[in-house]
Amino acid sequence: MSKQRTVRLECGKPTQVIYVLGTELNIDIYKPSPPGSQTFEVRSSPGVKCSISDQHNVSIVAEHATRWALNKGTLIVVTMDKTSNGLNESKVTVTFYGDKLESPIDKMIIQLTAVSISLDVDADRDGKIETNNPNKGSWSWGPNGHGAVLLVNCDKDRLDTTAPDNSDEAVTIFEDLGDMSPMILRTEGPNSLPSGYKLQLYISASDKEKVRVFRHDLIKMTNVLDRKKLSVVMDYTKGNNKYHFFAEGLIFPDEGINNLVTINLSLLEPLTVGEAPIFTEKVVFRLAPWIMTPNTLAPEEVFVCSVKNNEKFLKEFTAVVEKAKCKLTICSEYVNRNDRWIQDEIELGYTEAPHKYFPVVLDSPRDRGLSKFPYQKLLGPDFGHVTRTSDEVNSLDSFGNLEVSPPVTVKGKKYPMGRIIIGSAFPTTSDGRNMSKVVRDFLYAQKVQSPIELFSDWLAVGHVDEFMTFVPAPDRKGFRLLLVSPDACCKLFMKLQQEGHGEAQMFQGLMRKLVTINEILSNQKLLEDNAYVQQCIDWNRDILKMELGLDEDDIIDIPVLFELHKTYQAAEAFFPDLVNMIVLGKHLGIPKPFGPLINGKCPLESAVRSALEPLGLDCNFIDDFAAYHLLSGEVHCGSNVRRKSFALKWWNMEM
Amino acid sequence: MSKQRTVRLECGKPTQVIYVLGTELNIDIYKPSPPGSQTFEVRSSPGVKCSISDQHNVSIVAEHATRWALNKGTLIVVTMDKTSNGLNESKVTVTFYGDKLESPIDKMIIQLTAVSISLDVDADRDGKIETNNPNKGSWSWGPNGHGAVLLVNCDKDRLDTTAPDNSDEAVTIFEDLGDMSPMILRTEGPNSLPSGYKLQLYISASDKEKVRVFRHDLIKMTNVLDRKKLSVVMDYTKGNNKYHFFAEGLIFPDEGINNLVTINLSLLEPLTVGEAPIFTEKVVFRLAPWIMTPNTLAPEEVFVCSVKNNEKFLKEFTAVVEKAKCKLTICSEYVNRNDRWIQDEIELGYTEAPHKYFPVVLDSPRDRGLSKFPYQKLLGPDFGHVTRTSDEVNSLDSFGNLEVSPPVTVKGKKYPMGRIIIGSAFPTTSDGRNMSKVVRDFLYAQKVQSPIELFSDWLAVGHVDEFMTFVPAPDRKGFRLLLVSPDACCKLFMKLQQEGHGEAQMFQGLMRKLVTINEILSNQKLLEDNAYVQQCIDWNRDILKMELGLDEDDIIDIPVLFELHKTYQAAEAFFPDLVNMIVLGKHLGIPKPFGPLINGKCPLESAVRSALEPLGLDCNFIDDFAAYHLLSGEVHCGSNVRRKSFALKWWNMEM
Repeated sequence: MSKQRTVRLECGKPTQVIYVLGTELNIDIYKPSPPGSQTFEVRSSPGVKCSISDQHNVSIVAEHATRWALNKGTLIVVTMDKTSNGLNESKVTVTFYGDKLESPIDKMIIQLTAVSISLDVDADRDGKIETNNPNKGSWSWGPNGHGAVLLVNCDKDRLDTTAPDNSDEAVTIFEDLGDMSPMILRTEGPNSLPSGYKLQLYISASDKEKVRVFRHDLIKMTNVLDRKKLSVVMDYTKGNNKYHFFAEGLIFPDEGINNLVTINLSLLEPLTVGEAPIFTEKVVFRLAPWIMTPNTLAPEEVFVCSVKNNEKFLKEFTAVVEKAKCKLTICSEYVNRNDRWIQDEIELGYTEAPHKYFPVVLDSPRDRGLSKFPYQKLLGPDFGHVTRTSDEVNSLDSFGNLEVSPPVTVKGKKYPMGRIIIGSAFPTTSDGRNMSKVVRDFLYAQKVQSPIELFSDWLAVGHVDEFMTFVPAPDRKGFRLLLVSPDACCKLFMKLQQEGHGEAQMFQGLMRKLVTINEILSNQKLLEDNAYVQQCIDWNRDILKMELGLDEDDIIDIPVLFELHKTYQAAEAFFPDLVNMIVLGKHLGIPKPFGPLINGKCPLESAVRSALEPLGLDCNFIDDFAAYHLLSGEVHCGSNVRRKSFALKWWNMEM
Repeated sequence: MSKQRTVRLECGKPTQVIYVLGTELNIDIYKPSPPGSQTFEVRSSPGVKCSISDQHNVSIVAEHATRWALNKGTLIVVTMDKTSNGLNESKVTVTFYGDKLESPIDKMIIQLTAVSISLDVDADRDGKIETNNPNKGSWSWGPNGHGAVLLVNCDKDRLDTTAPDNSDEAVTIFEDLGDMSPMILRTEGPNSLPSGYKLQLYISASDKEKVRVFRHDLIKMTNVLDRKKLSVVMDYTKGNNKYHFFAEGLIFPDEGINNLVTINLSLLEPLTVGEAPIFTEKVVFRLAPWIMTPNTLAPEEVFVCSVKNNEKFLKEFTAVVEKAKCKLTICSEYVNRNDRWIQDEIELGYTEAPHKYFPVVLDSPRDRGLSKFPYQKLLGPDFGHVTRTSDEVNSLDSFGNLEVSPPVTVKGKKYPMGRIIIGSAFPTTSDGRNMSKVVRDFLYAQKVQSPIELFSDWLAVGHVDEFMTFVPAPDRKGFRLLLVSPDACCKLFMKLQQEGHGEAQMFQGLMRKLVTINEILSNQKLLEDNAYVQQCIDWNRDILKMELGLDEDDIIDIPVLFELHKTYQAAEAFFPDLVNMIVLGKHLGIPKPFGPLINGKCPLESAVRSALEPLGLDCNFIDDFAAYHLLSGEVHCGSNVRRKSFALKWWNMEM
């Protein structure tokens, strides 16, 4: 809105004008001048600055009441720089002269009352509200950017409900204020304004689903703006006053939503009919995104399920979590209802504003046995919840199919929070399985971790965590990409065969038929299946190299074999899938592969150790065979990790 | 998609590879090397370039079969620069050596067939398709920008239907091809590829409502891609082949739509199971926007309605159109069904691609008597039609409330096609009238004429054309903004009163009670109404100055009085509203105001003449009193103009 204001005057009677600091009054003095006027003088009270804009818009400051020629279009431009103590405290007088130089024809008087009004937020993102930040009305990214942040109040500070705080219209607990963005309306000036002047706070209809604003006075919180109430009028009560507001974000960024929220403030002047704003300003917030945490961030809490047959697994798993000194939370069977795939039901991320940070669980539309877990065990004070639901859910909607890379730079473009990775149908197919549009739209809309889509539909389960993961590394880009490699596995087995170990047996100690290396290498169907799987992986490898800016040396091939399901021609791991691991700092919990034992040692485990231990990683092989592998999942599918947030603040990204 | 491709080789048997010009084959030679290998040699056919990337990624060109140390991660990178005439015409041999320097241990052979594949469009926007433009896969604005344009095929070349061409799935008339964007798929190489190789053209589901692609061969047009068919497979038929396609835009840019359309092409290689693309590229189009034409563009055709009582008006109106040498189209009563407000039913604009331009009517959701006119009389060959409908239509949905400014520059930001102007409820009101969201969304989504919203709900009818218009001017910014001014009218009448003309009468010669200047100036209610109206206009004036970067000298005040409707408190013109004029180059058709006659002359007409004639404008006052003014409209409301397009092409704008 304009900070310039056209004011019309008449000769004869004084005109009373409320002036807001920071604006300019434009007053045409030619049109209302009395007939015969040729020149004019301007006199003003101390603190009032008048400049004269002739019709060519050259301004000259009027001093000592110099006389000026009156031209068509002559404007005087009035500004003030201090607030008034009383009404009509300052004055501008314009005196018109005709032929007779000494006797004025008529004069115009403006009586001025100056007030200061500012709607303030934390536009410089230091966690504190400043006064009248010149950039509060717009938003830009980066360390030199500006504009306030609106946190989505999706945690649950109240104990008496089951829904997140943004789902109701009340604030009944003090802690909830900390999740909202504070905003202050400051007024300065005389103790009162003439009757009818009001302050109005308002939002546009396009923002009504995104924000709710509460006013906080000493005794209560009042919901002043929301979807049902787009504007609120307040009195200008006294000369040095503050109104305290709290703005609550209601929804995360999403497809088709403008992620900026504008709150407007106007000073209304009464008119003959209705009223009009004589001063307007706005503050702009950006809705904080939901952010994922890659394996390279420090783990804080590990989640796993207790189910009927996984006692042995739990014991070995717990040992790794203890080594990593993480908190371990075991989801009981009462809550998980025998659904062990806690990786698939949820993705743990966070949201952040300069004044507040908390973890947020993204709850998958999968909704099997674990569907109540995120509500019952995660959502709570400073732990948020967001979900997307869909009528058509398939296996690719599980969040084993949702990962995030460590920070990367690709051809000069920085992704300092990494890139989201999801698995999809092959891009040239129109009948494959894909993650639901609502979830993909949500992920793309967060913007700060621009997603990459891989081809995972070649797998029976279809999750990206079946063929890739990231581990931290002390050198290069700070991580390695681990990719399964049937080719590497075949080469390893051929080498062992050539060394005379062809009769070494896989799966020893398990309730399963033993298989020798010779049998594997003479199984033509198995070798063909794996040649196909390798092509699928190579295709993803080329995409990953391009989209993450990786070199060959950033990638480690992990020997795994697959077989294609007879009917569906979709791939399943032939032995426990070594990349489907949990990464807790330098401690890895890896599915025990039960490879062919040679002198009591497993060459698959050795291959993984010799690739990863030089990076300072600690390889722990966990027996997940009966409790997970045979049910088409592994360690990663059966666990989840809440990690530390990025040191980088998302608003400091250059976009 | 990646232009790098990972290829796996084995010792012993030769590997056949189809190579696409412009790609790089990355071949790991360490992993498949025979045990004991220490060094290797690379030999290649003429035209095949092999470089060696050791594990630190330093490439050295291999010449004269120099021998290289074999390291973990050693890749050879193969490129070719000419297509092959036959299959397996070129070869790369990698020979491995161990301890014995003279006798090789084993070797790997790659047999190469090089093909060239390119999907081509007019990415440089000169109206012609180039070959393999390096920028065809992305889109950018500006004279140095790139990326093809997709025209929305919303005209109707066929005579046997009533709907635009983009509404059906067939192309039955040759002229229709000219509205589509041509696209060519070129292949070069041997006469055939091994069995199973195919070319696939495909779009993503998110583009399926935006584009339809036809293939044109000598004998027929085939619809190959559309909402029901996201991909099509074609044979690689012979070595020097072209497929001709035509892409048809289906919808204009709109809210929540990504305005880019991507068409992908892949070369598919048969796998054991299914097939995989070994080469992929894409071309990107932008949907052409709908563009409005300001009053400063030359008029080509004028539209007006013939209704029961407007014969006299038509005669005077026709005279102005003839002066301006425009085509005049009179919409008959049979078509208009006594609805004379042809400004309100439609807005005439255009759309454009490098290969084609045509006018497009935006059909308002208003739909009164004239609702069939755009379909019956405008839509046709090279005249497009687009509409938006809404269940809740109010008077602000009429297109008298939709105008566009001439080109402006605002604080350094250029709007070389001007800015759209629409009228709305007051921004602080939540219960006022507004233009339908579907229409406003459409207007914002065109992007090239970024809209401004004014306050027009203070008027009973509520259209911006009731208080403003633009006329061409030879100086300054090339135009003036005309704004109604009750203040200017009161001042003019006071001057006349002071000069002794207080008893001069308005409305002479009309079937209406005469009113004197004295009566007007003593009517306190009327003066108060007009003080309020002036405040509404001043508010808009400040917005217009800011949003169009105008100075006071760019604005001309036009004397008009209003009165507030007794019940609704909404303003209606007290005498014919002088700004509601038709602008045809320098010829203006202005509502005759029937002001107080002084010596037989109307001082209102004189005021307008003396303001506009110095700009070279020809003022023609048309009597619209009975046929339009008394029904709450004037000349502009009752007419419409199709204008020349901008010389500037929209894709050359800097955005």
